[in-house]
Formats: sequence, C-alpha cells, structure tokens
Amino acid sequence: MQTIDFKEVEITGGFFKDLQEKNAEVSVYNIYKRFRETGRFQAMKCIKDEAHKPHVFWDSDIAKWLESAANILAKKKDDRLKAWADEAIGDICRNQLPCGYFNSYFQVYEPENIFRKRPEHELYCAGHLIEAAVALHEAGVDDKLYAAMIKYADYIYERFYVKKDAGFFTCGHPEIELALVKLYNSTGSQKYLDLADYFIEERGRHNEETYAFTYPVYHQDHAPVREQKTAEGHAVRALYLYIAMADVARIKGDEQLAETCESLFRDIVDKKMYITGGTGSSYHGETFTFPYDLPNIFAYSETCSAIALAFFCDRLAKIRNRAEYHEIFERVLYNNVLAGESADGKGFFYVNPLEMHECIYDYNEGLKTKLFCPIPERVEVFDCSCCPPNLTRFIESIGSYIYATEGNAVLINQYISSKTEIGGAKVEIDSEMPYGGKVCVRVDGKADLRLRVPAWSGGVAMRVNGKKVEPKIAEKYIEIFCDGEIEIALDFKIGARFVYANENVWYDNGRKAVEYGALVLCAESADNGGNLRNVRIRSLAGAKRADGEFFTLEVNAERLRSSAALYSYEAPVPEKIALKLIPYFSWANRGKGDMQIWFL
Amino acid sequence: MQTIDFKEVEITGGFFKDLQEKNAEVSVYNIYKRFRETGRFQAMKCIKDEAHKPHVFWDSDIAKWLESAANILAKKKDDRLKAWADEAIGDICRNQLPCGYFNSYFQVYEPENIFRKRPEHELYCAGHLIEAAVALHEAGVDDKLYAAMIKYADYIYERFYVKKDAGFFTCGHPEIELALVKLYNSTGSQKYLDLADYFIEERGRHNEETYAFTYPVYHQDHAPVREQKTAEGHAVRALYLYIAMADVARIKGDEQLAETCESLFRDIVDKKMYITGGTGSSYHGETFTFPYDLPNIFAYSETCSAIALAFFCDRLAKIRNRAEYHEIFERVLYNNVLAGESADGKGFFYVNPLEMHECIYDYNEGLKTKLFCPIPERVEVFDCSCCPPNLTRFIESIGSYIYATEGNAVLINQYISSKTEIGGAKVEIDSEMPYGGKVCVRVDGKADLRLRVPAWSGGVAMRVNGKKVEPKIAEKYIEIFCDGEIEIALDFKIGARFVYANENVWYDNGRKAVEYGALVLCAESADNGGNLRNVRIRSLAGAKRADGEFFTLEVNAERLRSSAALYSYEAPVPEKIALKLIPYFSWANRGKGDMQIWFL
Repeated sequence: MQTIDFKEVEITGGFFKDLQEKNAEVSVYNIYKRFRETGRFQAMKCIKDEAHKPHVFWDSDIAKWLESAANILAKKKDDRLKAWADEAIGDICRNQLPCGYFNSYFQVYEPENIFRKRPEHELYCAGHLIEAAVALHEAGVDDKLYAAMIKYADYIYERFYVKKDAGFFTCGHPEIELALVKLYNSTGSQKYLDLADYFIEERGRHNEETYAFTYPVYHQDHAPVREQKTAEGHAVRALYLYIAMADVARIKGDEQLAETCESLFRDIVDKKMYITGGTGSSYHGETFTFPYDLPNIFAYSETCSAIALAFFCDRLAKIRNRAEYHEIFERVLYNNVLAGESADGKGFFYVNPLEMHECIYDYNEGLKTKLFCPIPERVEVFDCSCCPPNLTRFIESIGSYIYATEGNAVLINQYISSKTEIGGAKVEIDSEMPYGGKVCVRVDGKADLRLRVPAWSGGVAMRVNGKKVEPKIAEKYIEIFCDGEIEIALDFKIGARFVYANENVWYDNGRKAVEYGALVLCAESADNGGNLRNVRIRSLAGAKRADGEFFTLEVNAERLRSSAALYSYEAPVPEKIALKLIPYFSWANRGKGDMQIWFL
Repeated sequence: MQTIDFKEVEITGGFFKDLQEKNAEVSVYNIYKRFRETGRFQAMKCIKDEAHKPHVFWDSDIAKWLESAANILAKKKDDRLKAWADEAIGDICRNQLPCGYFNSYFQVYEPENIFRKRPEHELYCAGHLIEAAVALHEAGVDDKLYAAMIKYADYIYERFYVKKDAGFFTCGHPEIELALVKLYNSTGSQKYLDLADYFIEERGRHNEETYAFTYPVYHQDHAPVREQKTAEGHAVRALYLYIAMADVARIKGDEQLAETCESLFRDIVDKKMYITGGTGSSYHGETFTFPYDLPNIFAYSETCSAIALAFFCDRLAKIRNRAEYHEIFERVLYNNVLAGESADGKGFFYVNPLEMHECIYDYNEGLKTKLFCPIPERVEVFDCSCCPPNLTRFIESIGSYIYATEGNAVLINQYISSKTEIGGAKVEIDSEMPYGGKVCVRVDGKADLRLRVPAWSGGVAMRVNGKKVEPKIAEKYIEIFCDGEIEIALDFKIGARFVYANENVWYDNGRKAVEYGALVLCAESADNGGNLRNVRIRSLAGAKRADGEFFTLEVNAERLRSSAALYSYEAPVPEKIALKLIPYFSWANRGKGDMQIWFL
C-alpha cells in the first residue's frame, strides 16, 4: 500500500477541519508560548546557565514543534509562525558543532560525555531533529536545518557505524532509526538506511550497556529484535522501534522482519491494548505489562504511545494492507489520541486513564505522592512535554492516512471530509464521521475504488449516482470500479453498541463499554453526579441523542444503591437514571470529577 | 466490662485447641529456629559485628517471641522452650546498660545516637520488651526481665518525663504507651501511667520532629490525639496508639478521650475496613487511605494491623461494652488474623491480599519490582518479621476474649470451647464454631448470664436443660439467669449468605462476597482453575458441604466465557460450574494460584 501525503490532500470540512484550525490557531501557538516560558527555545541558543539547565530531551520538544509548524506552513502562510520557526532553526544551525553534532544539553553542560550516556536521549533528540528537518524541507519551508541535520546524520554514521567509537551501540530510546529511514526516503542516500538497519539489528546484542532502569526489557534490549515476538518494556520506545523495523522490512523486502512486526502487532492488539487504543498500561516505567493487564483508573496509556501505535498501523499497512490496521488506527485516533488534548486546544494529557475517581486525585494531593496518581485535568505543557507537539504534528498530517493505492486499486481507509487526486482520478469525501454514518464519495476519472467498511458498522446501504446498489464487499472493503463522474452515497449503520472485554481482562469482568461508531463513550460526573462505578446499563434500546456541550447520548440505566453500612446482607437496590454519555475524548473539560467507561 | 485472663481459662477442644497445639508445638519452635538462623537471638548478645548488624526492630521480634513463650509456659511445662527463653532473657539482662537502657542495635552500633533518632523504633522495642517482661512475670515464668524492664522504664521516665533531654518527645512508632499501661496495671506504680499519658498527649504537638516519611500523618503527628477523629497514617502505628488511648481513657475515666477512640473506631469499621477485618489498605506506607478505598488485589492489610484492631475492640469493650466490638473482633480473628498463618503453622503472611492473580506475581518476579507485589505464598520469617510472633502470642492468649463480667452480669462474647470460673460460677462452653452454629453452655452456680448473638446468625433456637425456651434478647445478648446446674443449648442459624459492600467501595460494585457464619469464604484456582474474576453466583440456594482438605462449600455458579478477541460485540456466555469455596484463612496452602472473594 502506498499513501498519499497530507500535502496533496485538502481537508475540506467537518470534524478534522475544525480540529486542524484549532491546532494551527491555538495549540501550536500556545505550545510555542509555553516552550518559550519554560526556557526550551532559549536553550537552543546554547548559552551556559547552570541555574537553568535544559532537560536532555528538550531538543526533541523543539523538533516536534518545528515539525508541527512545517506541517501547517506546508498548507498556509503564517508569518509569525514562520518567524518563530526561523529563529529556532537559526539557533540550532548556528550552534551546531563543526563536526555536525548538536545537542543543547550535552555540548553545553557535559561535552566530555557526548555519546557516552546511552540512556540520555541524545540520538532520540537527533532523530526528532532529523524528522523536523525532513518535514521543513518537504514542506518547502526551510532547507537550512535539512542541510545541518544531514551533516549531523553523517557524523552519527561516522561515529557509530564506521569508527564505532561512541560509548554505546544503540540509543536508550529508539527514534533515530525511524528518522534515518525518513532521511533515506528524502535524500535517497543508502547510508541512512544502512545506519537505521544497523541500529535496529544491534539492539539486544550488547547487554553490557548501561541502563537507565535496571532491566533490559525496558529498552527492548532483552533480545535481538528478530527474536522479540511480544511487545515489552517502555511503550513509546517499543513502538518507535517497531515502526522503524516495519519501515526497514518493507524497504528491504525482509519477510522475517515483517513477520516479527506482525507478531508484535498481534500481541498488542490481541492482549495489551485498551479499548481506547491506549498501550503501555503500567505506571512502573510506562511499560507494556503482561497479557490482559489493563487497569482502568491506573491506566498509563501515554498520548505519545497512542500516536506511535497509529504510526505503526500505517507502516504495517504499507507492507501488506489489511483493513484491521485501519480499524486500529481509527480506534486509536478517535479515542486515546484525541483525548490527549483539551476541547480548547490548550491543555494536554500525558497519561490517559480510562476511569477517574476524584478522591484518588485529592487524596494523592494530600499525601503529596503524585507519582502514581492519575490526574483529572489537562495542563498546558508540563515537565516532560513530549506529547503536546507530538499531537500537533500528527493532527496536522491527518490527511496522510485517508487515501492510498495498492496496485491498481485506490483505497479509502478513513472517512474524513477531504479531496485529492489519486491514481489519475479526482476523489472527494464528505463525511459525517465520527458522529454520523453517512458518507458521500465523489470520483471524477477512472478508479478501481476500495471503500473500507468500518468494523463498528452494523451494515451499509449504498447508492451510486442516486441508485441503490448492493455493495460488493471483500476483505472489509467495498469494491467499486469508477469511470467518469460518480457519486457514491454510503450509509453505514451507526448506533450505540455494547462492547465486552476478553474474560482475562479482570478489571472489566462483568462490565461492558458503550461505543458509538468509532467513539468509545464515557460517563462523567459533570453530567451524572458522583460515583459511577455503581451504574448498570441493562439495554441500549432507548438510547437517544441529547443536548450537551459535546456529542451526548442518553441511555436508560440504574444506579445500584447500597445500604449505608460498609458491609450488609441487603442487596443494593437499583434506582433508575437517565445516563448521559459523551465521547471519551471529550472528558475532563468541565472541571475535576469522576469518569467511567466500563459499566455493570 | 472486665475480662477473665486466658490463664484462668482452659481451652478444652475444637478449633482453638487444635490451633493452640499447632502454635505451641510448631509455630513458636519454627520462629525460634528462624530467628536463630537470621541472627536475631545472637544480636541479644550485643557483640559488635559490622558485617551482621541487627535491624533496629529486632529486639521487638525477640520480645514478642518471649511473650509467646510466656503465654505457653503459663499453661504447660516445656523445658526446651524455657531454656531458650532463659538464654535470651539472660543475654538482655546481662547487656542492659547500668542506667537501665537496652537496645541491641543502638548501644552497640550507634551509642552516640541513643534517644536521638525518633523514627528508629527504640521506644517501640522498649515497649515490646516491657510487654514480654510483664507476660513472663504474670505467667510465673521469670522475674529477671521484669526487674530489668522496670529499671528501663524508670530510665525512660527520667529522660523523657523528668529531664526531657532526649532528642525527641514521642516515638515514631507507638507501642511504648500501651506497654506502660500494662506495667502500670502489673506494678500499680502511677508513674508508668503518667508516662503513657504523657507520650499520648505530646503526640502531634512537636511538628519539628524528624519524620521517617515526609508527612506527619504517617506517624499520627498531624494533630494532638484528642483532635484526631479519623484513622490516618500507618495502620499498626495508629492502632497501637488508639489501644493505649482507650486504656488511659478507661483508667482515668476520661470521657473526651473515650469519645475520640469511639470516633476512630467508627471511621475504621464504617469506612476503612476490609470484609476480612483488614485495615491499612495502601502499599504506600502501609497506611489507612481515604474512605472506602479498599482495593482487593493490592490490599495491604498487614497481619499485625489485624491483631491490633482485635486488641482495640477489646479495649473499647472494656470502657463501655457493646456487642459490635465483639462482632468486629470475631470478623478480624477468623479472617485476617488466621490468614496470617499457613495451615502447617510454619509460614506467615505480612500482607494479606483479598484477591490474587498468579500472573501479577510472576510478572513482578520477572521485573524484579516486588515492592508493590502481593505474594501468593506464606514464608517462614522474613526481613520484617513483626507478624509471626505477634500472631503466636495472640493465639496463645485467645482465652482472654471469651468471658467477661459487666457489673453483676457474666458475658460470653466468643463461642470457643473452654471452661473457667467467673463471678462465682463454673462455666463451660462446647462450640462447633466456626464451622457449625451449635453451642452448649454449662453453668454450675449463680450467674446473670449474657450470651452474645453473632451478627451473622439468621436466628437462634434455645433449650435450657433440654427444654425449648424463647430467648430473651437485648442489645444482641441473650439474657438468662442461671442458678444451680444448667445446660443451655444454643443453635445459631448458620449458612452461606451474600454480603454486599457499600456502593462507595468501587472495587466491589456489582459484586458480592459469601460468608458462612463468621467466615469469609473465597475461591481458589486449586479447586476451581484459572481466572476467578469472571465467576458469577446468582444464588446460594444449592450451597452444600463438600469434601476437601479444608472446610469446603460447593455452590452453583457460572463462568462468563468471552470470545477470544480482546474486545467483542458478543456478550460473554455463562458456563455452569460447581464452585468450591473455602475459608479465606485457608487460602494459599496448596501452591501459587488465583484467589477471589468478591464475585459477580
């Protein structure tokens, strides 16, 4: 499968048009402001100030912000954004060492330790800078950082691949690998692919290396990557690595590596993924844990990890397309990814719990032991702010995940209102999703079209140029050959449905979630009052849309009211209620409170 | 209420006779062996050995073992046990400093820090040594340690109460307070009561003191004790303090302090106690947390904390008797306390989870992060082995909690097969409890008898000298005046009953536990296979006794079988099973596996 880049796709309206406007007009501006206030942009000037040392991964924050800016500037003029980007680029290029090295922390504060401290994110930062440089270059925004990062990549190649005189073999946090593949794609220079390949294959072969945490599995160092068949360790590290593995497997036609990637994907989606698409369930190191260990209130489920899983789905589809990759992409996108950002575009979640009890939060405040405490409010850029600019760069590039080609076929994988030219035909989508099931696809030209049937749809009605047609579905795609001007009206059956977790997910036994189309719904105390764990939904038969600040569905439910005693022989008594459900991604926008996804 | 000491009560048969035999013949011996192997007894010799430093609380382990030995030797001859006790007592007395001080850690390794390090358990150890000395003295076993500890108490009185030149005001771990009350009761010397009172009242008035953890609430230092109306901080510390507060309130007739104790009791039993009687639900500092926060798999519920709650119930009943204190005592005793020990009497639990999933254990083993890991196997004496000798001393003294007097009335609070003389009458109990509801009480003499009706009993049939009598029940006690030789046959209705938790206990919403008499039952995978979270019990109608290594009840249940997918639109299908339930205290005696108390 080959995708159409977002720069060739225009988002024309609806849900994602609004989201991208908010992204470009609020989020990216606000992150800039907060990065400035917290000294991140200042750090790029590389002026030593012992009192305000940058964090070792601040370069990557700036890089992802630059990539977000590039993705916006690729599509529209914004002089202020351009000027801010130029200043940061200027600082980085000016301060790059003659050898090509750049790291605002190490070269200023610990030059003697350059490439000596494996866990400290040096190559991770380099990777994000390379990604930013490629994005800026391909957006036609800037070539200076591109040149600088090629020089840096050459220096890394020299030190790690040719001389092998660095203090470690592979980075403690994968990222450089996938960035080098992007640089290879952009420059065509084989050495970057070789270096990516080298970093991938060396991993897990040097157990003598220093670990930030005490266990190799955290860094995916427990075995050579081809022997890694289950997703282990820090989720973002793991997924960034798997993305690069999938890239290399595809480019080199390496079947064994592709199979390894598929095995990792299966382990994740069959055993280690939240209903929201979240991964990395444990607070202990933000890691994958054991199969079916998916706690709700203590879900970690980092926003970056969700974005990474979406990227991984896309990369796997590029090796050998299957509808399932797009189903998981859709689940991750509309739930965990979007939950990472507040409705106003200014606040962000790093951790995305699937359940909230206010007292947990208050209690932990009281004891000042916030380490293990899920937080019920998004904040504007935090200490470890990898997620905010990761989200903005991703939202801005959403156009890349809609259209694709496979052989002669033109695929529509996501129903996002947009238009493009693909395979010689003009294609345009008008979509109600995620809140409705109606989609109109207009094609002008010849196209062997494949329209994905979402996993959640209970059926589809189809009209071609106004005439009812029985859809021909194969492998979860509707097949229709278009020639000339054709309007395809699809009406995917959408409605509230119960979803049940595997019985081994012991947090969810006896409970069920409610989905509406691609959306996982939740109940909040803002709509429904106090404790929500005692809410039982017997049937969704009477579910109906209701007024609300967000998309709201009202369902008949009951609260199981117990006696006042701590323990009683009296069974709780059901009390009828009209339960309001909203999309999970809309939660925590109306003050602190309880939230629930899994109901009795 | 005044109790009859266990030394005046003979346990005549049944459940506790067996338990005490195991205690005296296996547990106390085995703990001695393990304490010897781990260097605890050697430490009493006070020979400096930098490579094998004792822990700061080892004196208290030895003290509780000595108290266990005293409680056994009070009732029977055991030369070997006596010789071991004598050796330890000799070591302690020989090494006591001329001033009276004794601490096997501080006087040998940090003499310059004697009474300078508040969190380091010095007065806690002194308290346990005093308790042991009183027990040995009152058992007629030994007076040397008694004399030595009086001297030590006098020294503490001098330093903390008279000169006030120690480095702190109150101990980081309460225990000395209740021990001083025992010494006051034993010697009649007012100064020990004054000192106990002083330690209680000074607590929470010196916030400048050094804390082991960063928050005063952990040590009950957040306010003067009379202002503490809710149970907070480290559960064992809290309960040991409350016990002493209740003692002092009773002795001094201090109504305000008694009310504070009652308020603390209410907070615990109404909001912070497991169905097993466990308290201190959090792994973060073994603490009480916020109301209704009672996680099952990550229950902390230390064995010592359960024993302490039993003591607290007894002390409160002594101020002003109510049946509820004995109900909670019974719940704690038959569930959390007894779960602390293995069936063979050799292994012990420090932490008592209410649910177990083997994979949690294995996973944590794998990652070597055992800190937050509940363990599914009892072990023979561990690093922090406060619980094993606490259990042995308590089991040996169980006779103290059966009979009591209040005014002219003779109370029977627990139905444990035993005999005694009380209020001029001979009283004898034959009891089937905990496995049956039949009890026979024989009285010879005059007694205004009060027989407690257990909270779990669904009714009681009564015969006096073979003749059916309608019981006269007031405040949960059957009242019957005895004169001469009388046999009272009670048949308390016993059977499996569902118990529901308060709706605010969100871990248990939609679930119910099964109790049989005083016993909380559980299911283990040893009887029932794999995951038990998906087990639903609709009714207990068909419950019947079944064969098994332990008391076993078989009930009709169903397992909710899901599809193999991680998430599915298909509801799980119930599969009929015969579920075997055993007493919670019998769990974890047949290898590692899953365990469940709360069922769908």
